[in-house]
Amino acid sequence: MEFDLEQGISVLERTPRALGAMLAGLGPAWIDATEGPDTWSPYVIVGHLIHGERTDWIPRAQIILAQGAERRFTPFDRFAQLRESQGKSLAELLEEFTRLRAANLDTLVGWRLTEDHLNLRGEHPEFGAVTLRQLLATWVAHDLGHVAQTGRVMAKQYREAVGPWRAYLPILDR
Amino acid sequence: MEFDLEQGISVLERTPRALGAMLAGLGPAWIDATEGPDTWSPYVIVGHLIHGERTDWIPRAQIILAQGAERRFTPFDRFAQLRESQGKSLAELLEEFTRLRAANLDTLVGWRLTEDHLNLRGEHPEFGAVTLRQLLATWVAHDLGHVAQTGRVMAKQYREAVGPWRAYLPILDR
Repeated sequence: MEFDLEQGISVLERTPRALGAMLAGLGPAWIDATEGPDTWSPYVIVGHLIHGERTDWIPRAQIILAQGAERRFTPFDRFAQLRESQGKSLAELLEEFTRLRAANLDTLVGWRLTEDHLNLRGEHPEFGAVTLRQLLATWVAHDLGHVAQTGRVMAKQYREAVGPWRAYLPILDR
Repeated sequence: MEFDLEQGISVLERTPRALGAMLAGLGPAWIDATEGPDTWSPYVIVGHLIHGERTDWIPRAQIILAQGAERRFTPFDRFAQLRESQGKSLAELLEEFTRLRAANLDTLVGWRLTEDHLNLRGEHPEFGAVTLRQLLATWVAHDLGHVAQTGRVMAKQYREAVGPWRAYLPILDR
């Protein structure tokens, strides 16, 4: 499937509500569950998505659209949420993610991007040249990947509890 | 994590809203997307969950709780939704799933299950003896697995569109 701006936005605008519907009001047994040491809980995932709203997607798109002399992105800190979420409840994080995402989508829509804009390039610190189209497609796939991860992390908590049904639930061993 | 009835229900009651938040109002490019031939789209997944509400979880729990002479479950038809969803919109399926799930959770809560009930057994056509506790844990893990699958199926549609970021998105090749 080719990236389509409108279809991409239709997913991006749903993610805060999807994670809110899955997680809001759940107890710590679910929201702090992980897949083992150094893996992320639903709580950590929401913090990571917030950090992306602040420092990744829109700031990188701005670097590309400016087409200045320096088009190299700042490397993304995949662990910033471990500091930045400190002391916040999941409800606060969900509210913050919802607010930041809505503001970022307002910015994105306000740019009225054309196909020419989508073909503009920036420089990824590792990959080299990348297009705005690829960046925006990655924003969408990244959201969906973390929604899937949230379901998987939670499902795995019942890996033993399901008994023999484990054989029918490949998600538990993925 | 041990199965806990209240914690399990807290997930089961969220699933219709989670899938609704992810999918309601999306176009066919997303809701009919699959991972390849003979794999399921988000639309097919919702139909499958409906069939489970009608024929799997509560009917099997009833067989266990009755402790009659015949405790063998009817095999579950994993493809029934391909017939039963015909002609229905995704909005209709989501509404049907929401309604059936709410009624089934009313039934479940109304049973006021004790630890002794949860240890009662039925006979799975393939696995043999299984407990009510395992059946209910499987209901929860099965929900979460299909939420994760929905995110994964959608994410994979941008496998090519993300360009070099594919290396950072393991979900796209899972």
